[in-house]
Amino acid sequence: MPELLDPLGADGIAESLLGDGAWLQAMVAAEVALSRALVTAGLAPAWMLGVADSLADTSALDLATLAVAGRSGGNPVIPLVAALATRAETLHAGASDHVHVGATSQDIIDTATMIVAATTLEATLESLESLAGSLAALAETHRATPQAGRTLGQHASPTTFGFVVAGWLDAVCTVILSVMDARQRLPASLGGAVGTLAVLTDAAATRQPGHPESTSVERVLSAYAAELGLVAPVISWHSDRLPVVELGSILAAATGVVASIAMNVAELSRTEIGELSEGLAEGEGGSSAMPHKRNPVSSVLVVSAGKQAPGLLSTLYGSLLAEDQRAIGGWHAEWQTLRALERLALTSTQAAAGLVANLRVDARRMRENLALTHGLLYSERASATLAGMLGKTEAFALVKAASALVSPVSPLSTVLDEQLAAAGHSDDVRTALARVFDPDAPIGQTGAAIDAVLTRYRGIARKKESL
Amino acid sequence: MPELLDPLGADGIAESLLGDGAWLQAMVAAEVALSRALVTAGLAPAWMLGVADSLADTSALDLATLAVAGRSGGNPVIPLVAALATRAETLHAGASDHVHVGATSQDIIDTATMIVAATTLEATLESLESLAGSLAALAETHRATPQAGRTLGQHASPTTFGFVVAGWLDAVCTVILSVMDARQRLPASLGGAVGTLAVLTDAAATRQPGHPESTSVERVLSAYAAELGLVAPVISWHSDRLPVVELGSILAAATGVVASIAMNVAELSRTEIGELSEGLAEGEGGSSAMPHKRNPVSSVLVVSAGKQAPGLLSTLYGSLLAEDQRAIGGWHAEWQTLRALERLALTSTQAAAGLVANLRVDARRMRENLALTHGLLYSERASATLAGMLGKTEAFALVKAASALVSPVSPLSTVLDEQLAAAGHSDDVRTALARVFDPDAPIGQTGAAIDAVLTRYRGIARKKESL
Amino acid sequence: MPELLDPLGADGIAESLLGDGAWLQAMVAAEVALSRALVTAGLAPAWMLGVADSLADTSALDLATLAVAGRSGGNPVIPLVAALATRAETLHAGASDHVHVGATSQDIIDTATMIVAATTLEATLESLESLAGSLAALAETHRATPQAGRTLGQHASPTTFGFVVAGWLDAVCTVILSVMDARQRLPASLGGAVGTLAVLTDAAATRQPGHPESTSVERVLSAYAAELGLVAPVISWHSDRLPVVELGSILAAATGVVASIAMNVAELSRTEIGELSEGLAEGEGGSSAMPHKRNPVSSVLVVSAGKQAPGLLSTLYGSLLAEDQRAIGGWHAEWQTLRALERLALTSTQAAAGLVANLRVDARRMRENLALTHGLLYSERASATLAGMLGKTEAFALVKAASALVSPVSPLSTVLDEQLAAAGHSDDVRTALARVFDPDAPIGQTGAAIDAVLTRYRGIARKKESL
Amino acid sequence: MPELLDPLGADGIAESLLGDGAWLQAMVAAEVALSRALVTAGLAPAWMLGVADSLADTSALDLATLAVAGRSGGNPVIPLVAALATRAETLHAGASDHVHVGATSQDIIDTATMIVAATTLEATLESLESLAGSLAALAETHRATPQAGRTLGQHASPTTFGFVVAGWLDAVCTVILSVMDARQRLPASLGGAVGTLAVLTDAAATRQPGHPESTSVERVLSAYAAELGLVAPVISWHSDRLPVVELGSILAAATGVVASIAMNVAELSRTEIGELSEGLAEGEGGSSAMPHKRNPVSSVLVVSAGKQAPGLLSTLYGSLLAEDQRAIGGWHAEWQTLRALERLALTSTQAAAGLVANLRVDARRMRENLALTHGLLYSERASATLAGMLGKTEAFALVKAASALVSPVSPLSTVLDEQLAAAGHSDDVRTALARVFDPDAPIGQTGAAIDAVLTRYRGIARKKESL
Repeated sequence: MPELLDPLGADGIAESLLGDGAWLQAMVAAEVALSRALVTAGLAPAWMLGVADSLADTSALDLATLAVAGRSGGNPVIPLVAALATRAETLHAGASDHVHVGATSQDIIDTATMIVAATTLEATLESLESLAGSLAALAETHRATPQAGRTLGQHASPTTFGFVVAGWLDAVCTVILSVMDARQRLPASLGGAVGTLAVLTDAAATRQPGHPESTSVERVLSAYAAELGLVAPVISWHSDRLPVVELGSILAAATGVVASIAMNVAELSRTEIGELSEGLAEGEGGSSAMPHKRNPVSSVLVVSAGKQAPGLLSTLYGSLLAEDQRAIGGWHAEWQTLRALERLALTSTQAAAGLVANLRVDARRMRENLALTHGLLYSERASATLAGMLGKTEAFALVKAASALVSPVSPLSTVLDEQLAAAGHSDDVRTALARVFDPDAPIGQTGAAIDAVLTRYRGIARKKESL
Repeated sequence: MPELLDPLGADGIAESLLGDGAWLQAMVAAEVALSRALVTAGLAPAWMLGVADSLADTSALDLATLAVAGRSGGNPVIPLVAALATRAETLHAGASDHVHVGATSQDIIDTATMIVAATTLEATLESLESLAGSLAALAETHRATPQAGRTLGQHASPTTFGFVVAGWLDAVCTVILSVMDARQRLPASLGGAVGTLAVLTDAAATRQPGHPESTSVERVLSAYAAELGLVAPVISWHSDRLPVVELGSILAAATGVVASIAMNVAELSRTEIGELSEGLAEGEGGSSAMPHKRNPVSSVLVVSAGKQAPGLLSTLYGSLLAEDQRAIGGWHAEWQTLRALERLALTSTQAAAGLVANLRVDARRMRENLALTHGLLYSERASATLAGMLGKTEAFALVKAASALVSPVSPLSTVLDEQLAAAGHSDDVRTALARVFDPDAPIGQTGAAIDAVLTRYRGIARKKESL
Repeated sequence: MPELLDPLGADGIAESLLGDGAWLQAMVAAEVALSRALVTAGLAPAWMLGVADSLADTSALDLATLAVAGRSGGNPVIPLVAALATRAETLHAGASDHVHVGATSQDIIDTATMIVAATTLEATLESLESLAGSLAALAETHRATPQAGRTLGQHASPTTFGFVVAGWLDAVCTVILSVMDARQRLPASLGGAVGTLAVLTDAAATRQPGHPESTSVERVLSAYAAELGLVAPVISWHSDRLPVVELGSILAAATGVVASIAMNVAELSRTEIGELSEGLAEGEGGSSAMPHKRNPVSSVLVVSAGKQAPGLLSTLYGSLLAEDQRAIGGWHAEWQTLRALERLALTSTQAAAGLVANLRVDARRMRENLALTHGLLYSERASATLAGMLGKTEAFALVKAASALVSPVSPLSTVLDEQLAAAGHSDDVRTALARVFDPDAPIGQTGAAIDAVLTRYRGIARKKESL
Repeated sequence: MPELLDPLGADGIAESLLGDGAWLQAMVAAEVALSRALVTAGLAPAWMLGVADSLADTSALDLATLAVAGRSGGNPVIPLVAALATRAETLHAGASDHVHVGATSQDIIDTATMIVAATTLEATLESLESLAGSLAALAETHRATPQAGRTLGQHASPTTFGFVVAGWLDAVCTVILSVMDARQRLPASLGGAVGTLAVLTDAAATRQPGHPESTSVERVLSAYAAELGLVAPVISWHSDRLPVVELGSILAAATGVVASIAMNVAELSRTEIGELSEGLAEGEGGSSAMPHKRNPVSSVLVVSAGKQAPGLLSTLYGSLLAEDQRAIGGWHAEWQTLRALERLALTSTQAAAGLVANLRVDARRMRENLALTHGLLYSERASATLAGMLGKTEAFALVKAASALVSPVSPLSTVLDEQLAAAGHSDDVRTALARVFDPDAPIGQTGAAIDAVLTRYRGIARKKESL
């Protein structure tokens, strides 16, 4: 069910990928994969495969019962294993002997964490790719749409909207690569009580007396990981929480990057700026008090996600400090924290994709805003152009002095031209200067940079297709 | 429903106080209180009271529908108001004119936040008081139970377990006072779109032409707050988030203080230390891999709560930076964050109360551990006692040198005594020294401090009763 | 020396109040106060007062030497005590016996923390009071200056700039009260190795055999705290870190509240909005690339402080989880963290006071911006006014429909008036509606709320004077 | 100068790599590299190379003056450029025209950030490699040293100390690879006021009229980055803060991983456990109150670093949300935060390397502790071994019941043996069981896992050498 206080999750996708149902499925998947891997490695009878198939169906398990029963052992795995064992016995006498063999609760929860993370990363990746596609199109379309570049909130120097969007796209590309990479590195967990795989080793010794035990154990581990689409770890990571921290970092980065785009949309949608607006559907963006209101709802909610991620991430980093072979509370602190972070990344990237796909760009308003400073926006370039002729220091001082005289009726171009004329400068200088104030003249490397980013984007898109 | 990954919430109390149902109830309570306050102030007809009574019943409202519908406006208030208005009209024609008058979505959500906070603080307070009661009893019982005082994990100097517990109790008392105080200061919110109360003022002007408008508006505000058990604010706090930050600070402090106690229980329960253990019920503390395991489950879960609170709190503090008359995302970032923090405070204090109520103290083991350093534990006091006779510097050096010679067969008391004898010191010195090593001798101000803390505790308990 | 990357600290005040010099002074003050308190309680000879006076002069101590020597014991107190003891002996034979008696390193560092905190809070309070004074004057001056109220970045409903400022002032008042209160509650620390005051108790027993020891110890503790302007604690707080957390919360709240004001200044200074600007001195706000730039430098730096505080605060809250009688690392994690937070609070409140004192308000621009939405800004009030006559639901729908027809040539007032006329509504309705669109008409409770906040402010100012 | 409250920085290395002097050097290096790159690209005369060489000497620049002057522009670049320009003119008339060309303050600060980061990462890498070397040796030496594996603080199942250390080493290897990778990706920044490189483009057009401008600009950018050992970015990252966030994540991960090791050392050094201890130098680990104290000082300080990193990292992630072409405060919030994080990573990895190099391992104590639970430690394996014969469920129940009967005089091995005998089980079963309780029997995959981690480590070491 969607949560009342999580409008971004209203479509239920977060609930379906991250909710208790998804978690139960993931924990059962881990147990089932383990039973199957035992068969693969010759440590369980072949008929166990059929039992495992039946156990994979979670419909008979009651979430509430497991949640309540999880209190006494500190996690839901103990009652889950008991339920699975009971059910296994009804399916085939002795089948419970091949459930949870060699595993400890943390193995199952950590593996389930990574199963859930895998689907979350995949869904997040899809949203990011959709977002990147929209950004690429916008960058192309507005490659030459002039816009005021702003620093610290003040008009600074001209840019193009396409160039600004290319900057966003570049960041999204970086995040996409990180997500792809992170997805490939998610580890399964299997170590037993203290990570040594002692029980599995003993089982191998008993069941396959001649065989080298480590070969059998390795087969279990690799079959287990492979079935789940995860990586077999070099050594137990029960108290090495880098996998969780790296995952969390990617999620927080994804959330932050889309929140930054959304914040820029919200700022550029300010009534006074009006360069962007959300393409709101009928009824969207309304207010309970103001009949006219068309709020940038998606932007605001995505920004809100971006503001929640850093604190959650800090909790995950805190869990790196892990005592002994299982931490006293640090591990448990990851569960809800990572889930909240996943929810934010998932829903905010999805919302950002929708937001950008429907973004309305008011190129005319951008052009109008360019004129607000009566030419001061061009002072950097005017100064640079004059520097070529007057020297940098003199040019900077000249433009600075001229800037102080600018008014609606005396734009910077006029003031400077008059001063240059008065100082007897050549027409060449004055002509060069005039070009600076042309809003339609190409601006610096904006075109080349847009192309470079689009090339990068297309390379990633191709890489994805070839997977 | 309890959450699979939140064992501390297994009894469902967090869900019932903080779940979507509780939130819906709180939002409706805010709307209903507003309608009633309008009647009180003469701005709505008396029959509206009956309508308000009916509206207070939330059973007809569907949470999922509201959650989904909340996406387009960015919060669930818009669909809620629509639903209430529709229902009001079916109850009395024109009744919808007296619903949500003068309010904006943020008023309702912020007020609901404080209604939910009130019940959370009250339940947390109960747990803290129960915890304090158990701690007070423990401090009294173990007032003279000697225990090794440890600094940086090393035996340092003797203390008593009662004194250690009194230190915990003192912190809990501080938190109790803060919670009581915070409960009294929770504000209602009512300001309208930009906090000016313009709509209510206009309504008062229209309805009560002669009256001074501010009197009517003030009556609405105070009746509204009073009915909800909240404080009427001096001015709109739509973009002043101090009330949320102060609330969050108390919750994080409560969680941290009980987590600190729990962490100490977990550490003192270490197999090698064994001075404390959780009084586990049958089946509690078990493991899925180790048949013998008796895990300090409650301690670990409470510690885990304490590790999650700081990151969440930092998000709330980040929301202090609020743009304009309603923040772009900062406000929205509070919702789930505060809820998560409330859940942690509520469930961890409750679990801590249970943990301490059932704590098993092994006074014999404490005494055995005292002897582990062969007297080095007493070096501070030995040094101080000798300082009275030899001077501080010489005494410190003497004890330090002696410490290096200590072994199981040559405890510090013996080594020092021999050195003093060899140096020809008087029997007085040696007798004084001998007393230092008596584990049953009173230790410093432990008794007086325990009494002082118990007195403080009793004062708070009395204050509570007199409320 | 001011730090290159901390422009807010350029005047050196943070360095002088929080630098290593200030810390050394504070640690020595703690040691000297302890020696004096021993004399007061009859546990040291009277001549020690003279020695203590000499020891208070820190000029002979070398910071770098102490810092380097502090590595091996984990803190600078051990070498400091050694240096003080050596110096004491040169002043009076046997004087070192009365240095650091009964104290442990943590006592000295924690007490020094609170000494430094006291001066920090006092300086911060001064800045906040200065800021409040400027805000009060602004609220008064602009009590009726109409301004567009904005929610989620969009024009929402009219307000007055004085009302907005009163909201800021109210938050500053709350912070001022918290700072005053926090200053009064800063505790001294004195407990000895494990907090039991065993050494002092033994010393009292030896020196004053007849006396009740706890009386003497209490006298030491109260004299020590009183001399330092701190509070004597009920029990050792070595591993109860609430005092640090409460202090940190206030500092973060102060930083956040002024950062929020600064962020609003920066936003309202945007080129397109232009309602506020920093009163920059000659050369201030310049850019290395853009000759015309007048950046809102102070605002931006104060915002930057507000963004750093929450993460630091979360570290302090993490330290609530303290092991045993001295934490394994949590305590040490507070030192630089609290110092950084103090620096932020100190310098940002000071800068905010300067910023607001020199703020330039462009009331004409505010009025111009009011017109940007062609009357939509008044939709909430239009709707409410019509609600009195047409019913709330119909009025809301009417205004919403009219809003969609608004354009530069057809403002909302005209559209609505035409619709009302067409629908045959009376002149009364149309006249009432016309008033709504008058930008100079009083707005809701803005006046009353400004007065209420100013009254609150004056009460605090008076309370301060009477201290 | 080392800081009084930062004992880990006592050797001054953090100060020398991260202090204001290092920062000034880095900023000047950026400016000098830019001037040289202009020459390379044909946009400045060749004699400028000589001027650049002279400007690289920072000895004439006064840090305090720059720091103070940095206040008015909000950063130290503006006064620095002025100082460099003045000096350039004294070296060669017109030379100032070739200083800071096309750059904005943020370019210089961001580039300097990455220069400083590069040396920090390199020094951190060295410490991590030294640490890894010590861990590899320990893992090898103690590959078969039996130790109690602990979960949630309780003895759980046997492991070997070498296996535990291999787990630490694996995490350190992961971090080493991340640091190497991060070092290779640090970007230079050069974009001008709003990132478009407009000024450089104009300069190229003026100076080399025929040439395609983007070729010249590209040559500047690549020469600039190459000289500084940084990467040329695809597009300006003024408001894409992923490079900072990725850097910060690595630093926090490094700090966290070594803090985890240190925390384990501190815990295993507890008086009651005594399996590890710091190899303290004479005088190290002392206490101001307790003559005997041998504190695990380095461990505690490293843990303390690990507790500070997450909060700082969260601030960096917060800065991902960046307004416009330069953020309002978010960018500035990175400066001191990143510096603090770098300091923690640098000093904590260095201290951890020293700590592990001098670690004292008490294998005898490890063996003694194995016996503390009278065989319960072996319950997982006993249960598993019996499962092969009795079935898993019956075996688990049998061992669980037996566990409840264990006492110092009736260890688990005896209880189980008696029960098996009583139940008429064969000698085979009893013999198999007896092997389980042999502390010297190989444990699970400990050997194979140690080998796998050592192989990974050696691969990294070789990779490093081949660079």
